[in-house]
Amino acid sequence: MTESNNDRLLRALLREPVDATPVWIMRQAGRYLPEYRATRRRAGSFLNLCKTPELACEVTLQPLARFPLDAAILFSDILTIPDAMGLGLHFVHGEGPSFERPLRDATSIRRLSVPDPEEELGYVMAAVRLVRRELMGRIPLIGFSGSPWTLAAYMVEGHGSDTFAKVKGLLYDQPEILRQLLNVLSGSVAAYLNAQIDAGAQAVMIFDTWGGVLSPSAYREFSLEPMQRVIEQLTRLSDRRRVPVILFTKGGGAWLEAMAETGCDAVGLDWTVGLDEARRRVGNRVTLQGNLDPCALYSRPDRIKQAVGEILAQFGHGSGHVFNLGHGIHPDVDPAHVGVLVDAVHALSRQYHASS
Amino acid sequence: MTESNNDRLLRALLREPVDATPVWIMRQAGRYLPEYRATRRRAGSFLNLCKTPELACEVTLQPLARFPLDAAILFSDILTIPDAMGLGLHFVHGEGPSFERPLRDATSIRRLSVPDPEEELGYVMAAVRLVRRELMGRIPLIGFSGSPWTLAAYMVEGHGSDTFAKVKGLLYDQPEILRQLLNVLSGSVAAYLNAQIDAGAQAVMIFDTWGGVLSPSAYREFSLEPMQRVIEQLTRLSDRRRVPVILFTKGGGAWLEAMAETGCDAVGLDWTVGLDEARRRVGNRVTLQGNLDPCALYSRPDRIKQAVGEILAQFGHGSGHVFNLGHGIHPDVDPAHVGVLVDAVHALSRQYHASS
Repeated sequence: MTESNNDRLLRALLREPVDATPVWIMRQAGRYLPEYRATRRRAGSFLNLCKTPELACEVTLQPLARFPLDAAILFSDILTIPDAMGLGLHFVHGEGPSFERPLRDATSIRRLSVPDPEEELGYVMAAVRLVRRELMGRIPLIGFSGSPWTLAAYMVEGHGSDTFAKVKGLLYDQPEILRQLLNVLSGSVAAYLNAQIDAGAQAVMIFDTWGGVLSPSAYREFSLEPMQRVIEQLTRLSDRRRVPVILFTKGGGAWLEAMAETGCDAVGLDWTVGLDEARRRVGNRVTLQGNLDPCALYSRPDRIKQAVGEILAQFGHGSGHVFNLGHGIHPDVDPAHVGVLVDAVHALSRQYHASS
Repeated sequence: MTESNNDRLLRALLREPVDATPVWIMRQAGRYLPEYRATRRRAGSFLNLCKTPELACEVTLQPLARFPLDAAILFSDILTIPDAMGLGLHFVHGEGPSFERPLRDATSIRRLSVPDPEEELGYVMAAVRLVRRELMGRIPLIGFSGSPWTLAAYMVEGHGSDTFAKVKGLLYDQPEILRQLLNVLSGSVAAYLNAQIDAGAQAVMIFDTWGGVLSPSAYREFSLEPMQRVIEQLTRLSDRRRVPVILFTKGGGAWLEAMAETGCDAVGLDWTVGLDEARRRVGNRVTLQGNLDPCALYSRPDRIKQAVGEILAQFGHGSGHVFNLGHGIHPDVDPAHVGVLVDAVHALSRQYHASS
């Protein structure tokens, strides 16, 4: 593997000087791109797209052909681990992910074991290797996993939820059972991310999509602490370079200080917390990633540029910021607007790095 | 109308001494009660239940016959104002509220006008009067409305949403149109709440269910500022007693200071912010209402008591706390668990008021 040519992302994640703020977009390989929809049709199903390394590689690369993004992120699903554990992941059209065999009792939780990533999730590692080969070091590749709590929430509910009544019922009534589940998931996420790093991922991100539905004390115990255990087990050096870890709890703006203490290198922010405030609170310890409201991409180009300028100004001078949306891009966004955003980040951010 | 016999709620909302922490529960008149489901069946439809004052009064009183709650809250829907504006509110089974004629262009927004509450929302005022008569001053009655932003979100989307793409598209691309909509809604909410106060509501609550989906600057401009304009227009004295205003932005934990500056008497909290932290930040200016996770009611009685004790301990000694859930009670909760909660609040809170 060759050294990255554009390593802005890796430098910014470690708060090293950069010439411009790096930018990538959550779900940048996704439904807003017609070429993605074409590959998705060819794949037959979303799951087949995830599980066929050549197709996963193809869609991973698609946005890079359109936009000068500073990172690739592996195309995959956050629920591959529970699928490998035998829960039977499938996708109902218009309703998101669902499990055929959700966890409904202590016995089924006790039966779970850590999947071997190279055996049972080999299709993910094959995709990582393919993408790295295709990228030829031009930009870094980010690997990822769902957080233990987020995986547990889906596994117990069986699907997404507005209330998370089942998994939170477990949390409040039988916390010891939930702890068992989070233990096996922490081990699984660590093994899975380490396998991605071994296969070539140059940074990894933990998506804690549902940590924000918890109370402060429940967040610490059932979401943050398992993530910290994952981070402690990660391979942090690959190709003689540090592998940065990004931690993202959607709706976690109140807990940035605690997130910054887990050993991660960067904290992802949704759009409900200001970058200025976030930098004041934790910017001397971690890089901040985010945080434009994905809905801002519905507006006309001059307003998008203005919104990008406001986010950059909120962070201010110096390194330690990776531009992103605060959540995944919406499927009905005009792809041209993504181009406007990426160009605006690069053009408007140079002034903040001039003296570094 | 007679003076309230139990005025703990009104006293606590004004941070006056009380003998025990008052408690009421969002959606306390609702689907978790079999007697509610029976009346709902008799009404034929949810909307008919809302629009028939005798039935709305009946379900308002139902939880009070079971539990020693410290307040009644009017049974109604947060979308009565847009319905009175002609959008055609209806309820699709299992999918929540929906409008037949959502707002889709600037013209339909410009055509809106403030509904006359006694004319077009007379059924609500009739229900308020009936409930007050039936309560005979035993406990106070809380009136309520959706916030201007929350009403606008439903009116533009046509129904609930995960992303609020349409109304946020408007916010980012045509903010001047959204401002027009929020202007007419601020006037409407103020007139509606004043009519409820005239009819006998002794406290009012503004439900900003969707303020938490906004960025900090968008929240201030499009959710908080319109609520402040509502509060400035409210009748604050009725029967020679102050009518307290409770402001609740779900997911608004980051903005408590700004909420406390609107002129409200109390700020509602969901369960994602600790009462100890909230009291440190704004407890010297406003009462705090909340904030047990509704899912805690799925656990067994001894754990519910423990959770109640923890919330009370977080707030600590003195008045200025109204116990509630952090959001509406879930329909599948065992009603007996509500009894456990209410009794626990009264029993366990006395120690915190002993010296006051």
